[in-house]
Amino acid sequence: MEFVSRLLNASRRNRSLLCVGLDPDPSKLPVRDVFEFNRAIIDATSDLVCCYKPNLAFYEAMGIRGLQALKKTVAYISGDIPVIGDAKRGDIGNTAAAYAEALFGYYKFDAVTVNPYLGYDSVKPFLDYRDKGIFVVCRTSNSSASDFQDLVDNFGIKFYQSVALRAGDWNRKGNIGLVVGATYPDELKEIRKLCPDMPLLIPGIGAQGGDLELSVKFGIDAAKEKAIIVAARQVIYASKGTGYAQAAREVALELRDSINTFRGI
Amino acid sequence: MEFVSRLLNASRRNRSLLCVGLDPDPSKLPVRDVFEFNRAIIDATSDLVCCYKPNLAFYEAMGIRGLQALKKTVAYISGDIPVIGDAKRGDIGNTAAAYAEALFGYYKFDAVTVNPYLGYDSVKPFLDYRDKGIFVVCRTSNSSASDFQDLVDNFGIKFYQSVALRAGDWNRKGNIGLVVGATYPDELKEIRKLCPDMPLLIPGIGAQGGDLELSVKFGIDAAKEKAIIVAARQVIYASKGTGYAQAAREVALELRDSINTFRGI
Repeated sequence: MEFVSRLLNASRRNRSLLCVGLDPDPSKLPVRDVFEFNRAIIDATSDLVCCYKPNLAFYEAMGIRGLQALKKTVAYISGDIPVIGDAKRGDIGNTAAAYAEALFGYYKFDAVTVNPYLGYDSVKPFLDYRDKGIFVVCRTSNSSASDFQDLVDNFGIKFYQSVALRAGDWNRKGNIGLVVGATYPDELKEIRKLCPDMPLLIPGIGAQGGDLELSVKFGIDAAKEKAIIVAARQVIYASKGTGYAQAAREVALELRDSINTFRGI
Repeated sequence: MEFVSRLLNASRRNRSLLCVGLDPDPSKLPVRDVFEFNRAIIDATSDLVCCYKPNLAFYEAMGIRGLQALKKTVAYISGDIPVIGDAKRGDIGNTAAAYAEALFGYYKFDAVTVNPYLGYDSVKPFLDYRDKGIFVVCRTSNSSASDFQDLVDNFGIKFYQSVALRAGDWNRKGNIGLVVGATYPDELKEIRKLCPDMPLLIPGIGAQGGDLELSVKFGIDAAKEKAIIVAARQVIYASKGTGYAQAAREVALELRDSINTFRGI
């Protein structure tokens, strides 16, 4: 089944637009074993989310043992809940094909994030996996996002808007989404207008200070769906004590319900 | 010692601007073991290069065993020859710091490539490693490079030129270089003018069709140095037979010498 259908199925079943970011930082974990930590978080939240999103950087920083924990984590998550590998890869064609093989073939992610800087042929090897989801990084949540993403071209179009428009052109198989930071609600609103049907992956609430209400209202499509609201640190580090999984559940539940209130369901 | 000095030392000692790209593709290897393959290539070429450049995609595609081979490969290369981890990472601050930890702390690369799309704060965690080299992807060698990199802003500056100029501003510690594809000689010439002192990492000769003579002439600095000419497939797959290492040496020797002829030394 194609990614968007799987995402919508999970989202409807759990009445949720919440995505928990599984970004373990060894200095903050209440337990030693990363997979054990992830498993406890997953067990405590799997009925509250529409997907999970591990960011590969945190696993790579731990070396081989981190990547082993990542592989086990993806395998552990139920096939009913999609897993997005946040990797933001971008390289020329044959190299991009190797990254796609790593992310889809080896780790078996259901979707990935990719960087658009190298253009179409760097994204195409991912798009060729028609049942997978590809989220093109469009407008990021960090404060330097404007350094390049806000450059205005000679048609008056900002660079991130060009990325959104091109991603729309590339979306022949219906498997493309966009990454848009919650910290830039005006840009989010505008991107949703440019791409009314695409799933939007929206990180930046919580630790980064993005506004939840605006993220939901501006991020959802006409059916009040297809916005994926990411919370990572806020959920997984809700408590550093032995009750960390229960604490994560409480935060996730509150977030899911607040999101549903804001989208009016 | 800082990266640029180490690069120049190796480059002068071996009279070479050649960088061998260690990009193993299991379907093309003459031996089963990736580390064994890399070791043979390194043993056969280490007096002919200024640095090596493994692209992480090819190791990631093999899963954990690929990454184990990568770590052994970096450790095997003599401390006298810098190793550039071609990873093209780009993510927000705390995540970029985790990638820097992976690449510099765990794999122990001497330099890395980074993607500029997210702006300054996504590059800064790498720059903080002052003895390491950071090559900002500027103008890539693929045919879709122009999709976004050629967008012209309202000051008449192309996006990749903005990246080159900003990288110049960011270069307070003198540890930044740029990635510029050999397949775009005019852009290479122009970037060398904008950044007269930075090392330029130049992939795209050989399989990708970039012109070697123009890459050298337009890439070198005033001292006829600091251009790093990458050859991967052309060298490492010079022969598929048992004599693959010797064949790689012959191609590398010819390339090194041609490069020296073109730079007039």
